Amino acid sequence: MSTAKFDTIGQYLLKRLYQAGVKDIFGVPGDYVLGFYDLMIKSQVRHIGTTREDSAAFAADGYARCVGMGALAVTYGVGALNTVNAIAGAYAESSPVVLISGAPGVSEQKDDPLIHHRFGPFTFQREIFERISCASVVLNDPVIAFRQIDHAIEAARRCCKPVYIELPRDLVMAEGYPMPTETVERFTSDQAALSEAIAETMALLAHAKSPMIVAGVELHRRGLQAALAEFVERTGLPVVATLTGKSVMSERHPAYLGIYEGAMSSEAVRDRVEKSDLLLMLGVTLNEIDTGIYTAKLNSHSTIRAALNEVVISAHRYPGIALEDFLGALAGSVNKSATSYVSIPEPPKNYAFPESDRPITTARLVERLNSALSNDMIVVCDVGDCLFAAIDLRVHEQSEFLASAFYTTMGFAVPAALGAQIARPDRRALILAGDGAFQMTGTELSTHARLGLNPIVVVFNNDGYSTERCILEGPFNDINPWRFDRLGELFGPLAGYDARTEAEFEEALFNALNNQSMPSIINVHLAANDSSEAMKRLAEHLQSKIKREV
Amino acid sequence: MSTAKFDTIGQYLLKRLYQAGVKDIFGVPGDYVLGFYDLMIKSQVRHIGTTREDSAAFAADGYARCVGMGALAVTYGVGALNTVNAIAGAYAESSPVVLISGAPGVSEQKDDPLIHHRFGPFTFQREIFERISCASVVLNDPVIAFRQIDHAIEAARRCCKPVYIELPRDLVMAEGYPMPTETVERFTSDQAALSEAIAETMALLAHAKSPMIVAGVELHRRGLQAALAEFVERTGLPVVATLTGKSVMSERHPAYLGIYEGAMSSEAVRDRVEKSDLLLMLGVTLNEIDTGIYTAKLNSHSTIRAALNEVVISAHRYPGIALEDFLGALAGSVNKSATSYVSIPEPPKNYAFPESDRPITTARLVERLNSALSNDMIVVCDVGDCLFAAIDLRVHEQSEFLASAFYTTMGFAVPAALGAQIARPDRRALILAGDGAFQMTGTELSTHARLGLNPIVVVFNNDGYSTERCILEGPFNDINPWRFDRLGELFGPLAGYDARTEAEFEEALFNALNNQSMPSIINVHLAANDSSEAMKRLAEHLQSKIKREV
Repeated sequence: MSTAKFDTIGQYLLKRLYQAGVKDIFGVPGDYVLGFYDLMIKSQVRHIGTTREDSAAFAADGYARCVGMGALAVTYGVGALNTVNAIAGAYAESSPVVLISGAPGVSEQKDDPLIHHRFGPFTFQREIFERISCASVVLNDPVIAFRQIDHAIEAARRCCKPVYIELPRDLVMAEGYPMPTETVERFTSDQAALSEAIAETMALLAHAKSPMIVAGVELHRRGLQAALAEFVERTGLPVVATLTGKSVMSERHPAYLGIYEGAMSSEAVRDRVEKSDLLLMLGVTLNEIDTGIYTAKLNSHSTIRAALNEVVISAHRYPGIALEDFLGALAGSVNKSATSYVSIPEPPKNYAFPESDRPITTARLVERLNSALSNDMIVVCDVGDCLFAAIDLRVHEQSEFLASAFYTTMGFAVPAALGAQIARPDRRALILAGDGAFQMTGTELSTHARLGLNPIVVVFNNDGYSTERCILEGPFNDINPWRFDRLGELFGPLAGYDARTEAEFEEALFNALNNQSMPSIINVHLAANDSSEAMKRLAEHLQSKIKREV
Repeated sequence: MSTAKFDTIGQYLLKRLYQAGVKDIFGVPGDYVLGFYDLMIKSQVRHIGTTREDSAAFAADGYARCVGMGALAVTYGVGALNTVNAIAGAYAESSPVVLISGAPGVSEQKDDPLIHHRFGPFTFQREIFERISCASVVLNDPVIAFRQIDHAIEAARRCCKPVYIELPRDLVMAEGYPMPTETVERFTSDQAALSEAIAETMALLAHAKSPMIVAGVELHRRGLQAALAEFVERTGLPVVATLTGKSVMSERHPAYLGIYEGAMSSEAVRDRVEKSDLLLMLGVTLNEIDTGIYTAKLNSHSTIRAALNEVVISAHRYPGIALEDFLGALAGSVNKSATSYVSIPEPPKNYAFPESDRPITTARLVERLNSALSNDMIVVCDVGDCLFAAIDLRVHEQSEFLASAFYTTMGFAVPAALGAQIARPDRRALILAGDGAFQMTGTELSTHARLGLNPIVVVFNNDGYSTERCILEGPFNDINPWRFDRLGELFGPLAGYDARTEAEFEEALFNALNNQSMPSIINVHLAANDSSEAMKRLAEHLQSKIKREV
């Protein structure tokens, strides 16, 4: 290879990913991708092995949410197809994950042989991923491979969605050809529309008596957290966030009121939002979860909604305005305000915790976690009651709350936290997961342990699929109880604790916080009928839906 | 519902599955499928909960291989997409698995809402599964739903492949309409071709000096094990099997010689097969694994190959002949033979086991397992060296060896064994798995434990991805070592053992065999460089392939 003028396809792919911020690639090796792995460990990019491929995809998703792009490399068929759910989740949640799948060599595919890991025509794998990615390429032609790689990485960045890159194993070391870079058409806002929308917004703001900001998930995906914070500082407007947008702004900021989620919100937040005479909705996705299962009562005549590429005021639209341009122009138009924030009073802090023998409840658990949160923590939350309970958590810095809050796939938290801690080694993960969700992917904690990471896992152990139980009770909601606190017997290093009372939890949390060198897991036994207020409201709603059918 | 004249769609689906032999349905509940679950637990069909959806699909695959059809029911998106790899495996391995996915109601889908678990247009999930199933139906029209159900179940049975059934949740309780049953066109063999092929085969057999049978996987998938046994009894011909066809005939039958797999076969078997002057290949798939990575040396001029729907003799083809018809007609044509079988001598039985402090090796482990196998055991084998080592196992009855031997997906064995034991409660599963594979799905053993099943798991613990190591060594082949013998600390009831020496293994095996009431797991520590002979040959071959690329 010493005479090579240009990079090989594999080298170029690694180089471009590194330049895009991908310093680590997750995955499980397999023979169709081994050549690429060999290149990877000789490159600047670090390989992070996981126990399963879906974990690698969740980890890449968590990583992408922290640094803007994540990647995984897996083998053909058995590897790639194991990630379909996680990649679909990244698509639904707008997370730019680059999936690299090894494949049988181009020369191997010619005679259509029945080789291992094959499940159909060789085009089928790409056809499956085309439905859950914003770009899919097969690098089977050295002449255009570099351009395909550039295109895929740029698409992931621009669309904030997964992309699929298939690399036949006999082309990993094929030399590619640098081609003139395609001009990337950057989206430019319509300046006339932008000026008019800003003017109208300013006029509305000037007359509004109780204006406020609703901050949504797209602010996070576009990296606009700082712009939001700046805008809030200048205007002094109060802010609520949606659940998928949770932590896009520091939840300890004096302007921050809490999560708005329709009927699932706290009474105080719901009241403030639904009585506001002007809602400035920034990057909000009006999905089922964020609208509290469509229970949100928002008067569209008193909203200004800046979405990815348009601004909607009352019933008229300004197409062609990028969210970042709108936010930037608006911040430039307002005068620095001297408004003092009117926060919602926090619950009294002088509660006694622990009350020694008192069985711990979800509400008290969240209260205690709230006071334990520190600046170096990032909360990664699984699906189930812990997600709804987390509405009441107030994280410190921006973007320190990660969850599959819209797609709601169970098993997200433990592997996603792996990605988050690899991406941000200065942060410690606090993982919240139900017992059912932990049984799905919790043993990925083995990888945290191997790498010397120190997440704290709090298992909300309420004896089965409790969210389902609230909708329809049946034996199918029962699961085999696991002694999560004994997980360290299976692999380690890992510290485990069992907590039934507040005193036990307090001691466990104290020890976990002080043990910086390994993962800790706290098995918190909650009563099966103890659920968060938000979940009770949700369950009532879903129950009525099912009832109509059964 | 008391006035209903006909079944509801959900009831009809359950009834037809039960009639097709599906007495148990695997799966994890979720709100889009809860209405169907509610019906299921009120029906004759039993629900078997698993910890993850892919496990449910592997279990349904194992179940299907034992009784002819298996099924699972999961929720939309997060549930169904988690099964893609396992369903693709069932497709590649020809296993009739019925995947039932709940879905948002037809009425819910109308306004195209951003509801949870959604990842794209509502048609995309079906489009993904269309590529890995032989039939896919969406039951969104009560008028034709019954016919769609009949069609899907018949397709699974006829093609021995998975089918996809999507059931919107608001149609579970909708009354369907019985329609005149479509006439199922049964495949009928071309009688002229059949007679001619039989005559030619008989003539060739009459003149052959060393004819033998190569028995393949399709005999199992078509349920022709008894027909094969009958044919062998009548002709006295010796038999070898392919690896994917392993155990299609009792491996203790005097006519049975062993597994033929090209260069990976034992010397004695390879010699007999490659020197035979007439090979009668029945239901053999000439895939990569069965041909020993295309190292098989078979003279096509001295083979008669009966595939699913054609018979190929030397260089000419008789299309339109079903495998079962050919086998039946052939058995009817031969006269009962008095031939005594010329078996390959078995290795001497009087070896000393255990030699107390001798570290245990793969070869000795398999020898010991061979003598421990009994009539009530079914061997379920994962991918890795244990699969190649299993070539030397001789199971007792027919079809007592299950593996993902062609698709080779890791993580198959533990959940597939769940399916096998549910399907055949009279059998005990012996599960062989590598340490890497066990980390993928091994905690599904939690379900065996919960249900009081008693599989014995032997972990071939060789410290990482050893099959990969043989191809290309690198740090990516390392995994966090698990103390598999301590798994019972996490959940139970479950007995665990650690074995480094032959004496330790002997004691563990003795205890496991005697403990009939719970799963047992034996963590067998093998040297990292100790591999089966077959794997050594395979690795050499794959290594040369990778070398050419790296």
